[in-house]
Amino acid sequence: MKPQGSASPHLRIVVVNPAQAAAGSGGEAPAGQALRSAALRIGLLESGYDLVASLPADVFLPQRIAQLQPDLIIVDSESDARDILEHIVIATRDERRPIVLFTEDDAPASMDAALEAGVSAYIVAGLHPGRVKPVLDVALARFRRERKLLDELEGTRQKLAERKLVDRAKGLVMARYRLTEEQAYQRLRSMAMNKNMKLAEIAQRLIDVEDLLG
Amino acid sequence: MKPQGSASPHLRIVVVNPAQAAAGSGGEAPAGQALRSAALRIGLLESGYDLVASLPADVFLPQRIAQLQPDLIIVDSESDARDILEHIVIATRDERRPIVLFTEDDAPASMDAALEAGVSAYIVAGLHPGRVKPVLDVALARFRRERKLLDELEGTRQKLAERKLVDRAKGLVMARYRLTEEQAYQRLRSMAMNKNMKLAEIAQRLIDVEDLLG
Repeated sequence: MKPQGSASPHLRIVVVNPAQAAAGSGGEAPAGQALRSAALRIGLLESGYDLVASLPADVFLPQRIAQLQPDLIIVDSESDARDILEHIVIATRDERRPIVLFTEDDAPASMDAALEAGVSAYIVAGLHPGRVKPVLDVALARFRRERKLLDELEGTRQKLAERKLVDRAKGLVMARYRLTEEQAYQRLRSMAMNKNMKLAEIAQRLIDVEDLLG
Repeated sequence: MKPQGSASPHLRIVVVNPAQAAAGSGGEAPAGQALRSAALRIGLLESGYDLVASLPADVFLPQRIAQLQPDLIIVDSESDARDILEHIVIATRDERRPIVLFTEDDAPASMDAALEAGVSAYIVAGLHPGRVKPVLDVALARFRRERKLLDELEGTRQKLAERKLVDRAKGLVMARYRLTEEQAYQRLRSMAMNKNMKLAEIAQRLIDVEDLLG
């Protein structure tokens, strides 16, 4: 198969494998894992992706992901992906990235845990080199959609929390200065403008002071 | 391959294909579609699923889905899944259901549109009978996670909207009866309790009356 020019250009990918320590124990699994990993890397390169690194899932992973800033992270783990995902969740906590998991683990509990951890695609027994590109494309679309939903949820929660803060502060101002609700609101607004702060920040300050003074 | 006892028992599946009209036009696509459909149905039956119906994507689809109440809907469409998805979105508007799309359409725009329409799994060139079960399991887990997120978003939006309503009604009551904020809130609460309504409902009523009276 020749490289397909249609892969997203410059999409920088990091592949994470189980830590090397596991390979020392011998037996079937590590050999199988090595074959899988080779097939995956061939598929990525043939599809025209920029495979910037293949990293073990060890304690250095968060630091290396922060340095490499990949556009997408592939976890390639026959089984026990949970430990690896834990490392990756820590590594992408501040800046979420699309995560694709190739595995042989078809236990529903593992699927739930992986999706909860932020995996955009959970692919069981799906390591066919020619099929890598559509799988990654779907994962990227899924990642964008989930991030949009999470951003919306975060934004709505934030608005609700700010509204509660402002309402509480308004009540404090009404009681302290014997103002109507409208007057109290205007007072808060001008305080915020004078201090060049957000309404919710001024509200939080007032509440903090009130809590301090009792 | 013998049926696997591990498939979710009694998971009732409906498969939706392009409307029969398309098959009359002759050519390669319909024949390919027929082969695909057969492979998919065999995979489902071998995996132990309850395939309750195979339906064309026509105007009767919403009605038939409402009658059959499937646990999962599979859309099997080589290309142009957009029209089918539109029918299914209408059919599942009131009660969301997991939707799995098997297709050959690998255009990123089609992926975005499908995920936006609520597709839990978008599988390109993935019709291998033996791989059906893990694909459906991941789709179910994905569906649960997305529904949880959407429910949370809906709940938070609802709370914010109700809070805005109650605040506005409180202001009306304060102005009309010359009450403090706390008194106005208590007045609203007792009105709601007396009428056996939610606080937000009473608030909406008061606002409606105010809007009517001007």
